Amino acid sequence: MPYAGSVLDAVVEPADDEMLLPKVLAALADPHRLATVRFLASHGESWCAQVRQEAGLELSKSTFSHHLRIMREAGLVTKRIQGARGYAQLRKEDVDRRFPGLLDSVLNADNPALI
Amino acid sequence: MPYAGSVLDAVVEPADDEMLLPKVLAALADPHRLATVRFLASHGESWCAQVRQEAGLELSKSTFSHHLRIMREAGLVTKRIQGARGYAQLRKEDVDRRFPGLLDSVLNADNPALI
Repeated sequence: MPYAGSVLDAVVEPADDEMLLPKVLAALADPHRLATVRFLASHGESWCAQVRQEAGLELSKSTFSHHLRIMREAGLVTKRIQGARGYAQLRKEDVDRRFPGLLDSVLNADNPALI
Repeated sequence: MPYAGSVLDAVVEPADDEMLLPKVLAALADPHRLATVRFLASHGESWCAQVRQEAGLELSKSTFSHHLRIMREAGLVTKRIQGARGYAQLRKEDVDRRFPGLLDSVLNADNPALI
């Protein structure tokens, strides 16, 4: 399932069998990115600006883009452009196939002081 | 279950309810640290020099100590001094209690090219 090239930017989204565990863990190892992953897990595909505003992230657009890039390059998230808007979606099934149980353990973690 | 102070160095090992998910994920997000965690999971408490030599880590003693410190500060590993030797142990039960399923998903990951 090639993701590369689905968006016209320089970010390469790996296929599920090319995801690397250290890279996925590093992409998850940040409170803002965890909040993004949780938002996308509960809301489904979302307009990027909406994620930034509603996930409780106090981030500039460019900083959010930086975080999104790290998540896309690890394989956690895919991005789709429609018109002038970018939409982000958690690749839950792909990550589950590659690293069973990992995302669920992170999503179910009881950790209120994430940010 | 206080860990701080069990070893006479400056590293503070958090109690299980003080472990932070981003910090635990960051401590896991490195091929050498993942190899260490896997080694400790399968071998139990181990002499640090043995881990460094037998876990397939080509690391200097000081670099291994740096990695060990990151794992201890996150809560993944505890260290015990006996005589002139340091022994490391994976805090599997503590991490499982705090973040159920996380360590198992990481330990069971099929990822041969970790390092």
